[in-house]
Amino acid sequence: MSQKISTAVINRLPRYYRYLGDLHDEGVTKISSKELAERMNLTASQIRQDLNCFGGFGQQGYGYRVDYLLEEIANILGINNRYKSILIGCGKLGHALVNRITFTKRGFDLIGIFDNDPKVVGTVVGGHTIRDITELEEFCLENKPEAAFLALPREVAPETAAKLEKLGIKGFWNFSSGYIVLENKDIPVENVHLGDSLMSLSCRMKTIK
Amino acid sequence: MSQKISTAVINRLPRYYRYLGDLHDEGVTKISSKELAERMNLTASQIRQDLNCFGGFGQQGYGYRVDYLLEEIANILGINNRYKSILIGCGKLGHALVNRITFTKRGFDLIGIFDNDPKVVGTVVGGHTIRDITELEEFCLENKPEAAFLALPREVAPETAAKLEKLGIKGFWNFSSGYIVLENKDIPVENVHLGDSLMSLSCRMKTIK
Repeated sequence: MSQKISTAVINRLPRYYRYLGDLHDEGVTKISSKELAERMNLTASQIRQDLNCFGGFGQQGYGYRVDYLLEEIANILGINNRYKSILIGCGKLGHALVNRITFTKRGFDLIGIFDNDPKVVGTVVGGHTIRDITELEEFCLENKPEAAFLALPREVAPETAAKLEKLGIKGFWNFSSGYIVLENKDIPVENVHLGDSLMSLSCRMKTIK
Repeated sequence: MSQKISTAVINRLPRYYRYLGDLHDEGVTKISSKELAERMNLTASQIRQDLNCFGGFGQQGYGYRVDYLLEEIANILGINNRYKSILIGCGKLGHALVNRITFTKRGFDLIGIFDNDPKVVGTVVGGHTIRDITELEEFCLENKPEAAFLALPREVAPETAAKLEKLGIKGFWNFSSGYIVLENKDIPVENVHLGDSLMSLSCRMKTIK
């Protein structure tokens, strides 16, 4: 994997991974770009183009081997990594993330949760005792987390991210709608805008009225 | 708006809407596709192509008028609608959605919340008293909601969605990872896979190690 893959393709890869995982679970061993396209509601040429970005696993007239493709995409996604991660903010959203996301299946290992609310500090979520945010620096120096998940209010997200960058964080998963500006522009920030898909739904509902 | 816009373009529109809203807030009145592309990390030709899908608002050598484009995208997204909506499942995630999402700014009006947990039924979230799921049918017949937000466990999502389709729901925002199969294939289902962007993050972090 020396070549650079575009962000757009990277953002589609998890979807390929999910669909191929389902096919694998169903016992499907190979699939053509046409069949995969129908399932995923993409065009076959889009799929061939995407998968060609990282080497092209398909054989003309045969299609893709599901297990091989699945493994390759897992490698490219890096979900066999175990990036040490911390969650900042454990209100309802942070709580929901810990309960719903299997971090270790996505390349991350949650090692600490922080909040500034005395009502939640000390309580246990997903096996982790929530720490006071004042312990953040010491914790980072000692445990060297690499990724941070931000589920805190918009207002405090930028300063928190700046502080975390100085503490060595190399990747952000940001649920706060606050813009994060880092000194090192190469550090990836995945912003999750929960409302975006709701707007898409609104748009798509118009046509079936 | 007679022509059909592809799902891919529809899914990018909320992002245009957010960026243009920020530009508008900053007092920017016009922008070239090149400048917008740099800000959004897209190519200028991609932007021209997307915006051409619904009529092409740009003038050669002048660029796009921010306020006009913003209004048009709002119209296309349909966020001036007020689809009556219900939330099914008000655990941590449902709770977080109600607290964080301004539904009315995205085309929806939340009119009821349902859960089956006696511990939360009767409590108030975002001004709504959570109703018992057994009241769902009567509520729908009486109030005719058009959209449903599903924040319930994977196992019960398909049957709940099937029931809601019969009760007249015309759009689903689905946070449960359970597949939803509806009789009417035209009814839009927006599936939110929270873990997808986490996998993208893992991929993007590999290159900065």
